[in-house]
Amino acid sequence: MTPGPGRLEVLSTAESRRLLEGQEIGRLALPTGGTPEIFPVNYAVSGDEIIFRTDEGLKLTLAERGQVAFEVDGIDVEAREGWSVIVKGRAEEVTVHDQPALRERVSALALYPWAEGDRGHWVRIVPNQISGRRITHR
Amino acid sequence: MTPGPGRLEVLSTAESRRLLEGQEIGRLALPTGGTPEIFPVNYAVSGDEIIFRTDEGLKLTLAERGQVAFEVDGIDVEAREGWSVIVKGRAEEVTVHDQPALRERVSALALYPWAEGDRGHWVRIVPNQISGRRITHR
Repeated sequence: MTPGPGRLEVLSTAESRRLLEGQEIGRLALPTGGTPEIFPVNYAVSGDEIIFRTDEGLKLTLAERGQVAFEVDGIDVEAREGWSVIVKGRAEEVTVHDQPALRERVSALALYPWAEGDRGHWVRIVPNQISGRRITHR
Repeated sequence: MTPGPGRLEVLSTAESRRLLEGQEIGRLALPTGGTPEIFPVNYAVSGDEIIFRTDEGLKLTLAERGQVAFEVDGIDVEAREGWSVIVKGRAEEVTVHDQPALRERVSALALYPWAEGDRGHWVRIVPNQISGRRITHR
């Protein structure tokens, strides 16, 4: 039997952060002027920031544009329950030249690309907003 | 032991469609002029189109802006494998007044909101692009 609609809860910032730290894959949405770009990335959390690796090309180019949205979720299709956390913030590359200490710190994260390729660029998202919601039947 | 990087495969349109039809939750990215909006929605597929329900407010307002991106994925964190499918297209409300036959058809879909609330508006995404990728160790 399909469960009826669940209750929608707003998550605290602390709970949203905890959930964000517990995942490895999120979806990055980038402004383009037209249709946004969206794709999954594997990431790590360092302090308040989201760190991911990328190669030259679309991600980097678009990351340079600045404001991005990042989504993680945990979905239970059977129970029709789940949560999502949305982070909005500024994306910028962390370079050896501009931020040597930070680059060293993020390079030490256990953050390995899932797919082959160079992925030699490190990008951080500096959040200015974090929010979370949960649908539950409890 | 953490598996090394996997091979990145481009999926065919047919395979991408099949994967899209097999899921219930996707993430919708909407242009705003600034930081994109992104959130999970439960959806159904009707023909080539993605159908979801919404209430008044952000989704509807932004859906009226037109071009959206929609992402679904299947992730195996343990194996560091997964696939994603991205659809880009035009979002528009399907109203009883403007498209009575279509509205009747989409209203008959087994598409029930996960969360409480009216969700009395039906939106379709008419795709102009579908693409898919898979990371695999096989």
